[in-house]
Amino acid sequence: MYDRIKGFRDFYPGEMAARRETIDTIEEAARRYGFREIGTPALERAELWTDKSGDEIVDELYAFEDQGGRHVTLTPELTPTVARMVVAKQQELSKPIKWFSTRPFWRYEQVQQGRQREFYQTNVDIFGSSEPEADAEILAWAADALTSLELTGEHFEFRISHRDILGGVLETYDADVAIDDAIRAVDKSGKITTAEYHDLLVEAGLTYDQAAEFDDLIASGDLEDVKAFADTERVDDAVSNLQNVLEAAEDFGAREYCTVSLETARGLDYYTGVVFECFDSAGEVSRSIFGGGRYDDLIESFGGQPTPAVGVAPGHATLSLLCQRAGVWPAEEVTTDYYVLQVGDTRPEAARIARDLRERGHVVETDIAGRSFGSQLNYADSINAETVVIAGEQDLENDEVTIKDMDSGEQTQVPVDEFPGEHDRPTFEDVS
Amino acid sequence: MYDRIKGFRDFYPGEMAARRETIDTIEEAARRYGFREIGTPALERAELWTDKSGDEIVDELYAFEDQGGRHVTLTPELTPTVARMVVAKQQELSKPIKWFSTRPFWRYEQVQQGRQREFYQTNVDIFGSSEPEADAEILAWAADALTSLELTGEHFEFRISHRDILGGVLETYDADVAIDDAIRAVDKSGKITTAEYHDLLVEAGLTYDQAAEFDDLIASGDLEDVKAFADTERVDDAVSNLQNVLEAAEDFGAREYCTVSLETARGLDYYTGVVFECFDSAGEVSRSIFGGGRYDDLIESFGGQPTPAVGVAPGHATLSLLCQRAGVWPAEEVTTDYYVLQVGDTRPEAARIARDLRERGHVVETDIAGRSFGSQLNYADSINAETVVIAGEQDLENDEVTIKDMDSGEQTQVPVDEFPGEHDRPTFEDVS
Repeated sequence: MYDRIKGFRDFYPGEMAARRETIDTIEEAARRYGFREIGTPALERAELWTDKSGDEIVDELYAFEDQGGRHVTLTPELTPTVARMVVAKQQELSKPIKWFSTRPFWRYEQVQQGRQREFYQTNVDIFGSSEPEADAEILAWAADALTSLELTGEHFEFRISHRDILGGVLETYDADVAIDDAIRAVDKSGKITTAEYHDLLVEAGLTYDQAAEFDDLIASGDLEDVKAFADTERVDDAVSNLQNVLEAAEDFGAREYCTVSLETARGLDYYTGVVFECFDSAGEVSRSIFGGGRYDDLIESFGGQPTPAVGVAPGHATLSLLCQRAGVWPAEEVTTDYYVLQVGDTRPEAARIARDLRERGHVVETDIAGRSFGSQLNYADSINAETVVIAGEQDLENDEVTIKDMDSGEQTQVPVDEFPGEHDRPTFEDVS
Repeated sequence: MYDRIKGFRDFYPGEMAARRETIDTIEEAARRYGFREIGTPALERAELWTDKSGDEIVDELYAFEDQGGRHVTLTPELTPTVARMVVAKQQELSKPIKWFSTRPFWRYEQVQQGRQREFYQTNVDIFGSSEPEADAEILAWAADALTSLELTGEHFEFRISHRDILGGVLETYDADVAIDDAIRAVDKSGKITTAEYHDLLVEAGLTYDQAAEFDDLIASGDLEDVKAFADTERVDDAVSNLQNVLEAAEDFGAREYCTVSLETARGLDYYTGVVFECFDSAGEVSRSIFGGGRYDDLIESFGGQPTPAVGVAPGHATLSLLCQRAGVWPAEEVTTDYYVLQVGDTRPEAARIARDLRERGHVVETDIAGRSFGSQLNYADSINAETVVIAGEQDLENDEVTIKDMDSGEQTQVPVDEFPGEHDRPTFEDVS
């Protein structure tokens, strides 16, 4: 007997039905905004991450040498891939470019609740607009996706910040501060102690006094205080940009879900402007549900024309935890419209009925295992069949079939040429 | 600038739209038969293939050692994974188990038309029935899937054989024949010369005279001749089983697409009974479009209870070639219901209209890049917008918006509170 690999999940039909409904719902929301589906490779050259993405993700790569001697990796996230794709067709693509896709990614990390080594994300990105409306549209889609899942503002909030506020404040210190390291410390601050947080800031180049001061300023989240403290054009511009994004989010219907939270930083190095994370309002899912933000420099660093970009990538593992705790996760069960039960040698007629019902678009099973009446009825029950059509030899001699409602157990006989006949989706109610 | 890896494809929105329509169509056909979607890992322990699947596929594995020292591989096909999943929950699952899924697989092989190193398949399998109806339901689904794509019997045919016919005939020779090697030779026979084919049969243990005789017998495809030649119960049973499958396929509506072709063998070692391949009737796509068959011993060999199984896995690359040559491949373009064009500072009203239209389920874009009238109109054209709603400052002062039909270029003004108003999907025709 073989085991699956640790951190990799099998999804059986019941759970998969709930996942599919969720994925379809949030993809439909993306389609309504005019995001277009793309398809992307599972393997890329490892340099796409080792060159630019920071040590943390590089340590977690499923990287190896392929048979052709290429240093390749299973993709740990989508952003460098879509950046590569934009660069490859930069001239042909009309802008803004608005793409989405749902697929697995892979990182060798500690397995825990809501975090597997293989995990699914729906990535949604806009390339070619630096305007605050692009950031706001990403937020609006995320809000629409979540509310389409029947989540509400009681269940989730978007915590929003701006990389240039953090970077702009940090660069006002005289110290030779490693800005990226300090921002990564901010990103971790919610998961570590204050002392550990300050240690990380000191490692990045601040003194302990500066670290405490910076922590207080950022934790307050007061944009006017931050502007006054830094007193630089960079921070003024960043605050204005953040406010403009929130104003556009108001018009787009997403403002009510947004809270300014300067402690939100995102771990990846390539973010440049607005960044945000979605959190469980009740605090039961402790890590962020998902995050996103602006990465205006990435396309150029990949060899393309300067192209502003903003995106978000809900992860389906944390999203399902949130939905489950909010009581809106779909039922994990399969559904079946009809089971056509054969008694005796009635395969031709049962097959005809099954085909007629399938042509009307219904989910229909019939016996393919030569089983008894009782065994077929148990199976019909196990697949949650709504209606059972019993094609029995005796009934058919009278040109009839029996229609059984599986919920009530009631049944009735109908002429075989009236089933399904003119009906689009005949139930016991329709024919009794 | 980074390149994608050889043999890996990027799918941009136009092509992806056509692929998505195709995948949706054949998955919907699977759902109508009561096949249930599952989700499966991209990585498995390499032993799942190295133990049982034959050298050819093993040589093509993307296998490596993960950070935990596991010998893992990107999955080259799905069958061992679903077998593993059946074994893991054998007691709980009600039978027959009917599963489907669409996802990529990976093999390091020569890249050519219709064959990439990353390729997509829709796998459809039935576990727990040894009856001919199960084989026939797989054929019926495959036929339904293809005809749902608007392909017809003029475009494709299923060539059907039986492993026990080939094996049963081979074992009648006195020679110490390596049956699996000989069957692989049959599988290759369509792609190599007769001399090469006979050489492979001789390598497998036949004499040259026996190889020629065997070739003639199998090429004739005459089931009575084959029975008479072998004169064994094994071959008699296999021929009966094949005929029973074809009879059930008649009831299920798939018989008309089936041809007996004993030269169809399938390359993988785990097949046991009926095997079949789908071919382009016009012969333009020279290799098989896809194949499948019965593999009754695999579950037991994986440590499970003896469980008969039959499945098929259309590959999307060859399927798209077939559809393209048949002229039924969907248009490779994106579609858009509405573009809401902003002239001046009309964002709040444009956003309101866009939201109202999206709530009705439509695909709607609006300006998120601060662009000019002309630039927005060009963009609307590039995304094939059907209707453009122009929210201009002056119009709005009169409480009006302009509705423009992009096909005809005609436009008209309507009261802003009547758009979309009571209409579900208002076009220029509805409001002019």
